[in-house]
Amino acid sequence: MSQLAPLLARTASWLNSPGSHGGIVISSRVRLARNIEGFAFQRKLSPVRQQELVDHLMVKVSATAPMPNALALKIDQLNPLERLALVERQLISRDLAGGKRPAGVYISSDEMYSLMFNEEDHLRLQVISAGLCINANLELAVQLDRTLEKALPWSNHPEFGYLTACPTNVGTGLRASVMLHLPALVETGEFKQVMRSLSKLHMTVRGLHGEGSEPTGHFYQISNQRALGLSEQQLVDHLNETVERIIAYEQLARQSMMTKSRTRLEDKIFRAWGLLTHARSLTSDELIDQLSWIRLGAGLGILTWRNWKMLDRILLQSQPAHIQLQNAHAEDVEARDQLRADLVRKWLQAPSSEQN
Amino acid sequence: MSQLAPLLARTASWLNSPGSHGGIVISSRVRLARNIEGFAFQRKLSPVRQQELVDHLMVKVSATAPMPNALALKIDQLNPLERLALVERQLISRDLAGGKRPAGVYISSDEMYSLMFNEEDHLRLQVISAGLCINANLELAVQLDRTLEKALPWSNHPEFGYLTACPTNVGTGLRASVMLHLPALVETGEFKQVMRSLSKLHMTVRGLHGEGSEPTGHFYQISNQRALGLSEQQLVDHLNETVERIIAYEQLARQSMMTKSRTRLEDKIFRAWGLLTHARSLTSDELIDQLSWIRLGAGLGILTWRNWKMLDRILLQSQPAHIQLQNAHAEDVEARDQLRADLVRKWLQAPSSEQN
Repeated sequence: MSQLAPLLARTASWLNSPGSHGGIVISSRVRLARNIEGFAFQRKLSPVRQQELVDHLMVKVSATAPMPNALALKIDQLNPLERLALVERQLISRDLAGGKRPAGVYISSDEMYSLMFNEEDHLRLQVISAGLCINANLELAVQLDRTLEKALPWSNHPEFGYLTACPTNVGTGLRASVMLHLPALVETGEFKQVMRSLSKLHMTVRGLHGEGSEPTGHFYQISNQRALGLSEQQLVDHLNETVERIIAYEQLARQSMMTKSRTRLEDKIFRAWGLLTHARSLTSDELIDQLSWIRLGAGLGILTWRNWKMLDRILLQSQPAHIQLQNAHAEDVEARDQLRADLVRKWLQAPSSEQN
Repeated sequence: MSQLAPLLARTASWLNSPGSHGGIVISSRVRLARNIEGFAFQRKLSPVRQQELVDHLMVKVSATAPMPNALALKIDQLNPLERLALVERQLISRDLAGGKRPAGVYISSDEMYSLMFNEEDHLRLQVISAGLCINANLELAVQLDRTLEKALPWSNHPEFGYLTACPTNVGTGLRASVMLHLPALVETGEFKQVMRSLSKLHMTVRGLHGEGSEPTGHFYQISNQRALGLSEQQLVDHLNETVERIIAYEQLARQSMMTKSRTRLEDKIFRAWGLLTHARSLTSDELIDQLSWIRLGAGLGILTWRNWKMLDRILLQSQPAHIQLQNAHAEDVEARDQLRADLVRKWLQAPSSEQN
């Protein structure tokens, strides 16, 4: 049995649909990149020194900012599936999961806090929660950062600010991102225009699983591209403003579909429902794409079914590693796709007494 | 109200699923091409003479072989939709429906007999019925032919047999065809091989609506390609043998899918059910393609739903001209596709008391 078993069976706290703004905002995430004095940047460290760094950080973090029932994990002690499951839960990066180097992660029991050791930077501190709450998350991240700083002297430059392995992070070391669900903007074709504007605003757009992931299910992570020259608060304000504007566009696009192409909209939504409640085999991508329409249908009141908790559960639990780690008979892709379809049918058709 | 209204509301008698062989055979059709002495071939007749021909044939047929409650229709008195509806019901050819020339059709009330006047030949006599029954239909066609011959002297050549406008029909003037439903052969990819063999056997393969129609919904019409040099019985025996062999191949392919790729098969069938019971807009082609899987699911007992009468009704009534002629608000394609989806949902979910 995997040491992640208790974690995997739960829904992540950052996934608490409808989130905010009628299901448009899934979650907000703030990440601080830090490096400590006395160790070179990761790329220049020998494997032995990297191991020392990870052990050092694990000890210092547990002692300085202990979190009840936290999970302290060494990445090399996890099998590839367990690592992928942590990526699926947004707790570690693909880079950390795939790396051969010593690495670790410290995760609070509610999964709101996650501290990666020996990622691109020595330490990457993440605060993630449901809804649009970048400010609150920044506050929590800064608090934790200040606590840790007492035991861990951050590499700092009087003019540039925090030093980081990649120059784009120098300064505040802050990256803030918001995960949005934008089916109407994509369907109406307006999202291309939004993407162009975001690029001009120095914003980055990514898929469900961050860097290197293709957008699926109309889920997009919007984040600030640069960290230098602006204060934490300025960066966050800038992101907040941008996100609020995108939300407004998505709301307009939804209203427009409701009035101008209602049948096409309903067709998409009810087909998705018909497909997910009947298919005998489902890939992860097809499921997420179809689930997107059901989420929209629930948000717009087109579906009477509106079990948000179940939508979250499916989104999380039906991902490849989650399926495979929690089911003995899911070794090959075919068995997994079949099992996924069986689970989704069962979950979507659960009696309303099991609904929230 | 269309003069075809009573006809359109019924199911055609040649559509009586499961037909035979577990739903594989839909219907059998026999057609005799005849020309009468005293008139040149259609292509060489002036419009005035063509009109005279049509009137002459209509009078002679009604008098010589009167059928109770038959429909005697002049094609130029039908609007394009009504003509298309007759094509959809397999009662007239696309050629007759689209032609600008004088033409007529005489249809028995059960739609088993249909006599086209001034098609490529002066008269084309069709007998169509459900299941595999080419022999019985040939017998009925020959009986009618002999009755008509008393009043209508057929153009005949002592050596070649019946003379026809197109040389491929010279001799018996017979074309026999069987409509088959071959989803498993298509899905397993074996149908390509079957097509090659059929071509070597001088057989022609066509779609649901005969000449010029693309195969949809895995429905194929197999017919004899040549009429010269063989007796009626030889032609029919040859077609019968070929069709029996294709049926056996389809049965093997179905068994193979049931044992070797059951999940994929069930996935196709249940997805089709989910789609048709949920879509809010359906094109005619998509409907027929999906209905094919439901037909297969009913035939294999994978679906507990097994309302064959309803399958026939949907296949016939959801075709473009049928939808449009029977519903006031189906002028544009969008409204028609929406209406089609609404009807199909209602029909498939009709309580079992309405099922046969």
